[in-house]
Amino acid sequence: MQIAFVIFDQMTALDFVGVYDPLTRLKTMNFMPELRWDICARTRELTDDRALRFTATKVDEPLTGYDAIVVAGGYGTRALMHDAAFIAWLRTAAPCPLKTSVCTGSLLLGAAGFLAGRRATTHPSAYRDLAPCCASVTYERIVADGDVVTAGGVTAGIDLGLYLVERFAGAEVRALIARQMDYPYATTNNQI
Amino acid sequence: MQIAFVIFDQMTALDFVGVYDPLTRLKTMNFMPELRWDICARTRELTDDRALRFTATKVDEPLTGYDAIVVAGGYGTRALMHDAAFIAWLRTAAPCPLKTSVCTGSLLLGAAGFLAGRRATTHPSAYRDLAPCCASVTYERIVADGDVVTAGGVTAGIDLGLYLVERFAGAEVRALIARQMDYPYATTNNQI
Repeated sequence: MQIAFVIFDQMTALDFVGVYDPLTRLKTMNFMPELRWDICARTRELTDDRALRFTATKVDEPLTGYDAIVVAGGYGTRALMHDAAFIAWLRTAAPCPLKTSVCTGSLLLGAAGFLAGRRATTHPSAYRDLAPCCASVTYERIVADGDVVTAGGVTAGIDLGLYLVERFAGAEVRALIARQMDYPYATTNNQI
Repeated sequence: MQIAFVIFDQMTALDFVGVYDPLTRLKTMNFMPELRWDICARTRELTDDRALRFTATKVDEPLTGYDAIVVAGGYGTRALMHDAAFIAWLRTAAPCPLKTSVCTGSLLLGAAGFLAGRRATTHPSAYRDLAPCCASVTYERIVADGDVVTAGGVTAGIDLGLYLVERFAGAEVRALIARQMDYPYATTNNQI
């Protein structure tokens, strides 16, 4: 199992780290010792929307060969959804069996064409922007449709991570990881 | 208002980013445009407990002059609580009027002597380790006592951030930031 976390300049750091924490615990808590992941971006160094610096582990390499991609959201998506080079790069993930996003990351999945015919969600402030990219905008915290799973805004990344944990490793592992994260909240809607 | 986020090698990234997101929105959403923060560590480059790289903005400088310090937790705390040089550095924050921590960051506040006579909390797996450092371990998500506010494990950092937002800017601003973070959960106990 190999996961690509897709990040970019002007992302929201919590969009990425909120989903990264539960997913990577599949390995660190030894439920899926074979799990590997890359932090994928088009540049080695980048910053979030508040100047916090991040470093990618894979730079501008095709997003092929992953079992899942996880795309962060944030302010930077508004420009990137119209950035032909970025979207062409993201499209290299087309063969991935599972394309997921947090917050306005769904606008990038949409710009890449991955939401065509799919139900999807995003940050509540971006429902209108998402509408032209997908079959229908669904006002739920986690929306799974075919090979695409989209999550609501920012903190919904934690719920997406736990959803994916359950999808990959079952409900018992999800409960153990949520407990280790000291996360007492059940996803408020569209529970799996 | 100036905040120091204290991070270190082998931290849990979400401990830091979960509290960083709501707090820094005080500036980015223009509620406290004068807010400043530093990412403080003893080395410029460091990694979380899963090899994710972070970059500090202030390196091994005294933690004086801040209105609040926010100390992350994670696996690295177990060694650092016995690291005299690190603890001496952390003690430079003694004059700060507000010392806060997420998860096992409270072990570091404790090792620095900041929890003496205080009620405090930590990750549920670390209650026993925290006990000798404080007056009493309190099994709540956010524990405020005098100049110290400690939070429970990992995801409790988000609740700590929202607690501090309310303390600095009021309940209405807290609600607006929580909505922008798409965070539907109320802190489950010890609400302010």
